[in-house]
Amino acid sequence: MRDLSKDASLLSLNTATVRKQWKLAEIIDGCVRHGFGGIGPWRDQVAELGLKESARRIRDAGLIVTGLCRGGMFTAADENGRKAAIENNLLAIDEAVELGAQCLVMVCGGLPPGSKDLEGARVQVFNGLSAILERARAAQIPIAIEPLHPMYAADRSVVNTLGQALDMCDLLGDGVGVVVDVYHVWWDPALASQIARAGRDNRILAFHVSDWLVPTRDLLLDRGMMGDGVIDLRGIRGMVEAAGYDGLIEVEIFSEEWWAKSGDEVLELCTEVLSGVP
Amino acid sequence: MRDLSKDASLLSLNTATVRKQWKLAEIIDGCVRHGFGGIGPWRDQVAELGLKESARRIRDAGLIVTGLCRGGMFTAADENGRKAAIENNLLAIDEAVELGAQCLVMVCGGLPPGSKDLEGARVQVFNGLSAILERARAAQIPIAIEPLHPMYAADRSVVNTLGQALDMCDLLGDGVGVVVDVYHVWWDPALASQIARAGRDNRILAFHVSDWLVPTRDLLLDRGMMGDGVIDLRGIRGMVEAAGYDGLIEVEIFSEEWWAKSGDEVLELCTEVLSGVP
Repeated sequence: MRDLSKDASLLSLNTATVRKQWKLAEIIDGCVRHGFGGIGPWRDQVAELGLKESARRIRDAGLIVTGLCRGGMFTAADENGRKAAIENNLLAIDEAVELGAQCLVMVCGGLPPGSKDLEGARVQVFNGLSAILERARAAQIPIAIEPLHPMYAADRSVVNTLGQALDMCDLLGDGVGVVVDVYHVWWDPALASQIARAGRDNRILAFHVSDWLVPTRDLLLDRGMMGDGVIDLRGIRGMVEAAGYDGLIEVEIFSEEWWAKSGDEVLELCTEVLSGVP
Repeated sequence: MRDLSKDASLLSLNTATVRKQWKLAEIIDGCVRHGFGGIGPWRDQVAELGLKESARRIRDAGLIVTGLCRGGMFTAADENGRKAAIENNLLAIDEAVELGAQCLVMVCGGLPPGSKDLEGARVQVFNGLSAILERARAAQIPIAIEPLHPMYAADRSVVNTLGQALDMCDLLGDGVGVVVDVYHVWWDPALASQIARAGRDNRILAFHVSDWLVPTRDLLLDRGMMGDGVIDLRGIRGMVEAAGYDGLIEVEIFSEEWWAKSGDEVLELCTEVLSGVP
């Protein structure tokens, strides 16, 4: 297992972690100041700074783009909605190319408004992924399906386990893989076997960390700083690395609590706790 | 599929649904008044009225006891804690006998305080179930493992999917089965296959309904009235009945919103909505 205490450059910062404190240009500077080796930007922040300017600044800072957040959201109530989603994903692929991103992260979409057809929504996601795959392959942008915690099945993603995401990968073939985000998958009884499976097929495209707090006061905005919750981060990272993953470790914390602190405080703590036990 | 519009007596009421409005004696009367055929009482409410008095009143009301809530909570930081949990579960079996309950519902327990050892907690649960099984079999009280939604893995139950619960059943043998609660399992990509598996092995001991609201504002106390959320209740009930389940349909809604209404209003609405589409 890699020793993070000797190399903070193994860390990447998902820009959502400090999105309320800083704009993208400040986040890039913060990453450099705190020794992060990578960044995982969100499209809205990139758009605000400008795509080319964002790419230039990230490149000049020497940061690896561990993933562009996010494509997906393929589910919609009608055909026009689904076509618009696909168009938007094709744009995201172009943006990922410009940024030199290692992958395009997919938050696949929940149930369409008014629908209770979970199986149908899963078919929509699969069809959406299929529709963009050729372009993604040609652009050499790997598509990274991120299974989301089952508590987001209704409104964010109907892809809810690593096994389900890998089943999709098997059907889709080359150019597609998964994001292992500990917050979403830590509870899964099949976690160890599915991480091993993902590794065998070279499907692990990104690894995201945060923590599950007890109690969790909000379904979306109460993720914890690594070490403050109950996730066995070291154990899961061990599985992921044993499965062959050698990419960066991306910190992604959505939290009103951490958004209320200074950006420098958050980044300093991230590097500090990840250099320790977790 | 059974036609609920013709037979409200196919419904059971989990007493948590109106626990803030009524004490157990009133809930029993309410069930009779609204035509429910069964009741699923909680142990604290039974204790308050008295075990023998509760049993007498429920029997006199002609209600089926679809399950006693709850046993479980096997996980603990030390051996004494685990022994105390097992003792408490043996008491619960005696109570279930007195009440003539069809099963004892198991909420198995989360991570012990301070622990991140999910696998270890799952072993503790298995050992706890093993320790009470002989007594449960002798008492003819089926043990009903209720897989809880993954968002409760840390603090309520480390048993989080139907497949995982059924794997435990396979190892434990006779006298043990599962509760299928739509709120906990609706998101599961393996739901259909695991319900079919549970049916083949005669493991479905109870069926609980409520709904998943969008947005869900609280992890614990924001369950929805059937029909107000996104769960395909009719679809899941169809699977459960096709798998051979012919027991009652138990309404279990934990909700500050519904606790703020009158008990009669809640029970009337339960029978009304379940006689319709869902």
